[in-house]
Amino acid sequence: MTGPTPRPVQFWFEFASTYSYPAAMRVEAACAEAGVPLLWRPFLLGPVFTQQGMTDSPFNIYPAKGAYMWRDLERICAAQGLPLRRPSAFPRGSLLAARICAAFDDAAWIGGFIRAVYGANFAEDRDIGQPEVIANLLAGLGQDAEAVTAAAQDPGTKAKLRAQTERAVALGIFGAPSMVVGDELFWGNDRLDTSIAWARRG
Amino acid sequence: MTGPTPRPVQFWFEFASTYSYPAAMRVEAACAEAGVPLLWRPFLLGPVFTQQGMTDSPFNIYPAKGAYMWRDLERICAAQGLPLRRPSAFPRGSLLAARICAAFDDAAWIGGFIRAVYGANFAEDRDIGQPEVIANLLAGLGQDAEAVTAAAQDPGTKAKLRAQTERAVALGIFGAPSMVVGDELFWGNDRLDTSIAWARRG
Repeated sequence: MTGPTPRPVQFWFEFASTYSYPAAMRVEAACAEAGVPLLWRPFLLGPVFTQQGMTDSPFNIYPAKGAYMWRDLERICAAQGLPLRRPSAFPRGSLLAARICAAFDDAAWIGGFIRAVYGANFAEDRDIGQPEVIANLLAGLGQDAEAVTAAAQDPGTKAKLRAQTERAVALGIFGAPSMVVGDELFWGNDRLDTSIAWARRG
Repeated sequence: MTGPTPRPVQFWFEFASTYSYPAAMRVEAACAEAGVPLLWRPFLLGPVFTQQGMTDSPFNIYPAKGAYMWRDLERICAAQGLPLRRPSAFPRGSLLAARICAAFDDAAWIGGFIRAVYGANFAEDRDIGQPEVIANLLAGLGQDAEAVTAAAQDPGTKAKLRAQTERAVALGIFGAPSMVVGDELFWGNDRLDTSIAWARRG
């Protein structure tokens, strides 16, 4: 007897997003374990927040919420065995890294790149907005940093990331990480397992 | 061998708060099962939101977030076997019910009253801001509605609820439900089990 065919989980993420960090670090392994296909969906939160009338991260706009988030993230990372060093700048520029993901979203190495960028931002306090930092991470993964960066800056890639961000808004996405399974939207690291279970039902 | 003495969980709640509904319906049973004392902490979200510069529920201010919340709440209630009927008015006036909880926060019947008010608001779409509705719920619990309401309107009770709301802000609370264990703050229905586990450690 075979079960239903699982549907893919679309993982919508932003490199500056704090709660995307613990989710991004485990989503590939969790989907593989559940036999659920994973689709990486990089997008930019900035334009999404702007559309909601916010010109900064809600964690900066609402300080009590921000203070709580950092402590909550500490607890989550501790429980998950993930290192965490609070970034000295928040939110960090994520445009280049997001464009790389848009250009190479189905490359075999993209999961490793995504985890490396999150680790640089949230475990090592490196400025992921700097092209040298990104080049360094690409080199560490055995990629040709110059070629990858050039592809990321291609007009077609820029348009793809813009379209993907518009698509996020159209899907009702207002924060990251968000998971989409069929018509169903799940928001937050707290819903990662629920979304995978939903996808498994087929 | 005996384990550490569990610390109490302070359960900070607001009757208009959607995610407080599934949490409030199970917190007493969950704490009892874990051997953790429960302290009911009613407060008002309105003044807390005002202090953050919001004049309405964030779910109304940010429509995408609001649309998501109602669907997410449906899924949560379905998983928990809880009835849900989206209130025809949101948020509902919670002042009288909150004052009753402030006046009788350690009465044996208060847990039942709290669940009855949440059920009226979120399962039956009744206007919990109306004194008749509250009187009806009190009568259903065998309480003297007139005497309870009079105690709730006592200046001492009003001052107590005001002080409790100020205390919530001082504790860093910015939403509901929130759980406090010692110095540790937990926010949201999603953190209820984590907060109880934290309290069990002593």
